[in-house]
Amino acid sequence: MTMQGAYAIEPWVLRETYLDLAKLPQSESLFALANGYVGLRGNLEEGEPHGLPGSYLNGVYELRPLPAAEIAYGLPETGQTVINVTNGKLLRLFVDDGPFDVRYGELRSHERVLDFRAGVLHRDAEWRSPGGSLIRVSSTRLVSFVQRSVAAICYEVEPLAAPARFALQSELVANEQLPGPAGADPRVAVVLENPLVQQYHNVDGTIVVLAHSTRRSGQNVAAAMDHLIDGPPGVMVESRVFPDGGLVTAATPLEPGQKLRVIKFIAYGSSGERSVTAVRDQAWAALSAARQTGWEGLLAEQRAYLDNFWDRADVEIDGDPELQQAVRFALFHVLQAGARVQTHAIPAKGLTGPGYDGHAFWDTESFVLPLLTLTAPDATAHALRWRHQTLPLALERAAQHGLEGALFPWRTINGQECSGYWPAGTAAFHISADIAHAVIRYVDATGDTEFDRGPGMDLLTHTARLWYSLGHHDADGKFRIDGVTGPDEYSAVVDNNVYTNLMARENMMSAADAALRYPDRARELGIDAEESGRWRVAAQEMTLPYDEGLGVTPQDEEFTRHEIWDFAGTPAGKYPLLLHFPYFDLYRKQVVKQADLVLAMYLFGETFTAEQKARNFDYYEPLTVRDSSLSACIQAVMAAEVGHLDLAFDYLGEAALTDLRDLAHNTRDGLHIASLAGAWIAVVGGFGGLRHRDGRVGFAPRIPAALSRLAFSVLIQGRRVRVEVTHTEAIYSLADGEPLEILHHDEQVQLYAGKPETRQTRPVPPRPQPAQPQGREPLRRRAIVDDD
Amino acid sequence: MTMQGAYAIEPWVLRETYLDLAKLPQSESLFALANGYVGLRGNLEEGEPHGLPGSYLNGVYELRPLPAAEIAYGLPETGQTVINVTNGKLLRLFVDDGPFDVRYGELRSHERVLDFRAGVLHRDAEWRSPGGSLIRVSSTRLVSFVQRSVAAICYEVEPLAAPARFALQSELVANEQLPGPAGADPRVAVVLENPLVQQYHNVDGTIVVLAHSTRRSGQNVAAAMDHLIDGPPGVMVESRVFPDGGLVTAATPLEPGQKLRVIKFIAYGSSGERSVTAVRDQAWAALSAARQTGWEGLLAEQRAYLDNFWDRADVEIDGDPELQQAVRFALFHVLQAGARVQTHAIPAKGLTGPGYDGHAFWDTESFVLPLLTLTAPDATAHALRWRHQTLPLALERAAQHGLEGALFPWRTINGQECSGYWPAGTAAFHISADIAHAVIRYVDATGDTEFDRGPGMDLLTHTARLWYSLGHHDADGKFRIDGVTGPDEYSAVVDNNVYTNLMARENMMSAADAALRYPDRARELGIDAEESGRWRVAAQEMTLPYDEGLGVTPQDEEFTRHEIWDFAGTPAGKYPLLLHFPYFDLYRKQVVKQADLVLAMYLFGETFTAEQKARNFDYYEPLTVRDSSLSACIQAVMAAEVGHLDLAFDYLGEAALTDLRDLAHNTRDGLHIASLAGAWIAVVGGFGGLRHRDGRVGFAPRIPAALSRLAFSVLIQGRRVRVEVTHTEAIYSLADGEPLEILHHDEQVQLYAGKPETRQTRPVPPRPQPAQPQGREPLRRRAIVDDD
Repeated sequence: MTMQGAYAIEPWVLRETYLDLAKLPQSESLFALANGYVGLRGNLEEGEPHGLPGSYLNGVYELRPLPAAEIAYGLPETGQTVINVTNGKLLRLFVDDGPFDVRYGELRSHERVLDFRAGVLHRDAEWRSPGGSLIRVSSTRLVSFVQRSVAAICYEVEPLAAPARFALQSELVANEQLPGPAGADPRVAVVLENPLVQQYHNVDGTIVVLAHSTRRSGQNVAAAMDHLIDGPPGVMVESRVFPDGGLVTAATPLEPGQKLRVIKFIAYGSSGERSVTAVRDQAWAALSAARQTGWEGLLAEQRAYLDNFWDRADVEIDGDPELQQAVRFALFHVLQAGARVQTHAIPAKGLTGPGYDGHAFWDTESFVLPLLTLTAPDATAHALRWRHQTLPLALERAAQHGLEGALFPWRTINGQECSGYWPAGTAAFHISADIAHAVIRYVDATGDTEFDRGPGMDLLTHTARLWYSLGHHDADGKFRIDGVTGPDEYSAVVDNNVYTNLMARENMMSAADAALRYPDRARELGIDAEESGRWRVAAQEMTLPYDEGLGVTPQDEEFTRHEIWDFAGTPAGKYPLLLHFPYFDLYRKQVVKQADLVLAMYLFGETFTAEQKARNFDYYEPLTVRDSSLSACIQAVMAAEVGHLDLAFDYLGEAALTDLRDLAHNTRDGLHIASLAGAWIAVVGGFGGLRHRDGRVGFAPRIPAALSRLAFSVLIQGRRVRVEVTHTEAIYSLADGEPLEILHHDEQVQLYAGKPETRQTRPVPPRPQPAQPQGREPLRRRAIVDDD
Repeated sequence: MTMQGAYAIEPWVLRETYLDLAKLPQSESLFALANGYVGLRGNLEEGEPHGLPGSYLNGVYELRPLPAAEIAYGLPETGQTVINVTNGKLLRLFVDDGPFDVRYGELRSHERVLDFRAGVLHRDAEWRSPGGSLIRVSSTRLVSFVQRSVAAICYEVEPLAAPARFALQSELVANEQLPGPAGADPRVAVVLENPLVQQYHNVDGTIVVLAHSTRRSGQNVAAAMDHLIDGPPGVMVESRVFPDGGLVTAATPLEPGQKLRVIKFIAYGSSGERSVTAVRDQAWAALSAARQTGWEGLLAEQRAYLDNFWDRADVEIDGDPELQQAVRFALFHVLQAGARVQTHAIPAKGLTGPGYDGHAFWDTESFVLPLLTLTAPDATAHALRWRHQTLPLALERAAQHGLEGALFPWRTINGQECSGYWPAGTAAFHISADIAHAVIRYVDATGDTEFDRGPGMDLLTHTARLWYSLGHHDADGKFRIDGVTGPDEYSAVVDNNVYTNLMARENMMSAADAALRYPDRARELGIDAEESGRWRVAAQEMTLPYDEGLGVTPQDEEFTRHEIWDFAGTPAGKYPLLLHFPYFDLYRKQVVKQADLVLAMYLFGETFTAEQKARNFDYYEPLTVRDSSLSACIQAVMAAEVGHLDLAFDYLGEAALTDLRDLAHNTRDGLHIASLAGAWIAVVGGFGGLRHRDGRVGFAPRIPAALSRLAFSVLIQGRRVRVEVTHTEAIYSLADGEPLEILHHDEQVQLYAGKPETRQTRPVPPRPQPAQPQGREPLRRRAIVDDD
């Protein structure tokens, strides 16, 4: 078995073969289970040792002050932060009279397996207690994709050599004690102590229910558990409850060959609007439903849900087993982050950790939704409906800033702006266009006209209004957007950021088109011909700076006039730069945190000639330090397009392995969901060459030397298109439904169900590969070949 | 007597003729006494009612956290804030058995007089107690310019109609209870509660001594008082002391015609380095010296000190008595702020209130020092030596920011950066050139070669190094300074701010010149020919943008391409804009908080043609909202130069009356020392046309129609030059010393002591006056003619 550290490289599972306590915080993130609403970090059942305990419910947050040394108009004074809710996954075991704790005694074997097809986390351990008892513990845990309030654990223990006495405590614990924050890294969430105020607690047989509310944010949270206990005759079962916890204990002696098995059903409820009683009863009801389904039923539902997903979404990578595993790991975790969010956001870390305070950013619309739109479009619809639901707040914030339309927050849980540093927060206006872009892509891909004329058109209209009021026509009639921050956070408050201007152009044009498409809705929204005409003119006259001297597109109007960062004088230990250099210095020099103009070239390829794309890519590559995990995947896509296939492969590796190899050194705080989605973008957009052109989907497949074959599927208008690519040919097939037209490069290809179409690949002439900033070269991707 | 509210318009005093309790906070600032080290707000002796009690010692501060919602490299984590030290000016009076409190009973007459020539604050009150006793109270208070640790009060009380019993308590009070901060205005200082920790207290006869230290900043503070008590035989005197206070009580019955008089001597000591004992004993020694000098002696010293000052510095304005008074009030308060700072800064509010946390800004070098350099050059030398003393901190901060040389703090008490918002703080790099400019002017004006080759050259060298490392040469060889903030705080983090670039150019050229002048010192500082050559090249190649299309100089490279602020849509209640609009919106539009390019034209007039100056002035005038009190005076100077004499007169009025009329609505927090100095700049630079050219001083006098005559003096090379201007002629006279060459316009005029030279004025052809932003027109200056 080929290994990468403690992890075996296998196509459909992530298997940990020994327990490295120093890496527990990271593995808790990797082994997190979630469904978009409930999220449980991969903590050991016995609670300790832990890196960071974590049980999250999407949308449950507490308010915290956002202090400012100098007050300014429009700065938010309070922010939201995700809290650790009642922990339902605890099962503490006492063996003879000591606790099962892997730090003591001898852990003779350990295995954890995250199964991407079954949607469960298995654990097996053989342990000798300090007193000498040899036992085996095994558990299987799931967070249900089908029953979104429900998690369940099947836990078994047996003595292996001699009889022993066992007491297994299944717990609910509110206000768990948490370790303090790890240093001064701003990306680590503030840990809130004792966020939950008790409201209700009850025990009834093996059922325990706890209800709490938050102190300041007015959220109610309920957790309930029930148990099926199976063991030798005479197992004693006792239950207790108290304000911040409850426990059900099963005690029994076991002979070798005998087992104690506890199936624990856990159900959650939460709301910022409904009463404690309503939320409590909701958890209770979910618990009853789970009990009714039963453990085997939950497993079967989970498998069926995932079979369906993999059937639509699987990516096959032949020639690099580690990447194969990593991309499936990525798809699985993106699904876990987005599957069942419903009325909530998809946070940057999903529900795998408290990083970034549990906030959602543009990551969702620009990285996660492209994947979900083409593989699980219902999840995209929910995510965009959540944005729509926060529209009143965005309208209010725009008005507060003297703007028309909707100003969406840079970072948020509930829709209110939580950024305390406006140059890298509110000034990143592109978030509003990112949302509009996701709407356009979703409607294009699904043909969901109900969404299009309803929430979609609302979002397009109010964001178009934002852009029109934010920009202005100069004396020459050109439309300028000054003083905003683009994707690259090492430049801020700049004039005419090309990415932003292109996004705003598309946003205004699309809103004007929607007004033509749905004249009744346009009237309702108060859009007259003059307004949509203004949008079109602004879009047509959009300023897109070009540096004639250098022959490249400047990221913003001033960018290429600035001094180039002293990369040679910046040692490796000084990255990420934001932790070692002041913003003032980063902002005023040519240094790029993450793909910005390169992202613009990906999304608006038709705006640039092939030659321009190649020149621009080669110009920005030596300036881009990738201090953001949102960068490698986009660089992969454009590297592939302009002919640097091996570099693209390196970047795919970086995006896909960000968390599996902890490349950003903060996987402990949660997974980089957007980077994981970015691995899919790199594969499909880079090597598949997928682009959206005039409402059609086109491909320009090309795979790097290291791979022998790539296959992936996308859902277009509800129909599954399968793309298989080798070095010489691409095979397109339509699984079912009406014929569909796609593009292979510039060639129109009509696909009929069951009739694959084969086309020759068109190699891009390889070009000299540009350098990266010194010390920031991506790891050269060398496939680890499976030696099984 | 002509009145302005409660104040009589008189040439040499500020007389308050009735007590308006609602305006007590402002009058406490107006009537503050200080000498640059000790500052006492004009609180009533009896302590209450008060707006804000205030006793300050320059350099005594406490640390406070500077919170940040999002941590960033290089942001200071603690700031300094001025604290209210032990109050020594309290004298509480009990009449029969109730306190003398003007809020009760009947205040039959009230007068306070701040005497600019005597340097004292008089008070007279006639009051009927609620119990019916009619009394007169009078006091005279001074803070000694000669004995810098000493203040003194002569307090008298007498019954007017019937015998009464009096008990007069003279107090020292530490940790006075303060009112809370007034709203969320960032310009109001944070009030710290109980900043002083007791270390020592002692009473000995009528002497009380208290010593305290601060909790976090390690400052020791001592206050001592002694008394001379004069009354009818049998006055009973009692003294007490306790950790946070001490009191000496004189009790006696008085018949009409009898008086009780207490002379109170107060002495302070403070240090962040010396021990409590040393500081305590220093206060004790100062007290003994004051007692030895006696009350009459202190009065005489004070008068002599001020006679000398007025002889050098007086400004006569014929034709506008209110301005005459205001300008003397201004000179007096600037002297109070700067006279005896010695090893400390001159804060923006002097020692008149806690506004801006007691911090010093560029206000000192750019507004206060121009006045002091030409009227009290020793004070300038002390202020610049204070900067020199903080050089190690500035070197350290530059290194922290990856820069060479010295990066001086935007706001500070002890030399450490206290700005929590870097785009309007640290990014305002011009502070370092402002210091260099003040050094150049000081050396020019005084010929102080010892200073020049010592601290002066250190300051020039390290600031030149900052500029060279901050800027860079572009592909065309031009030297650019990107990403900094100029004087206008409604633009930030811009490229090639013209003011900054001109200041940096002068800074580097002057440092290179100094290296030639003092080769031994250059070697010591490690300046070789290559380094000074680099400075010269950078200076010569400095980027100075010009907008060909508009024919104006843009404030910075991008400025004139931005949208113009919607002035018509901004109602008067929305000023100052920073309290009602987000920075993002201010930064991205053409709206100017305060003179920036206009200031550059004043200081570097030779860089612009007369035509350019006129065009630029007229371009910026409609964009400049004067939300800073540092603006009107500079606009006055340039308005006068380009031919808008009446507008210049209006702006002089605004600068001079900022506090007397509370135009910025925050005089309660302390006086605007820089605006007061600005009144002098407007007179001397605007109507006197004083400019520095090639080491010489030139004049281009021109007075507005409303004035009949203007006269002022400046000290040049230790020699007093008197300038008298009427509408037709200017008379220059040299009081004494060697002959001196000055310029009248372009004409060289050789002045000999005692031989006045008369020249014709040269009227500037009046031009159409530009408009200001709607609602931001200055008050039209209409002279209030004295009707006495």
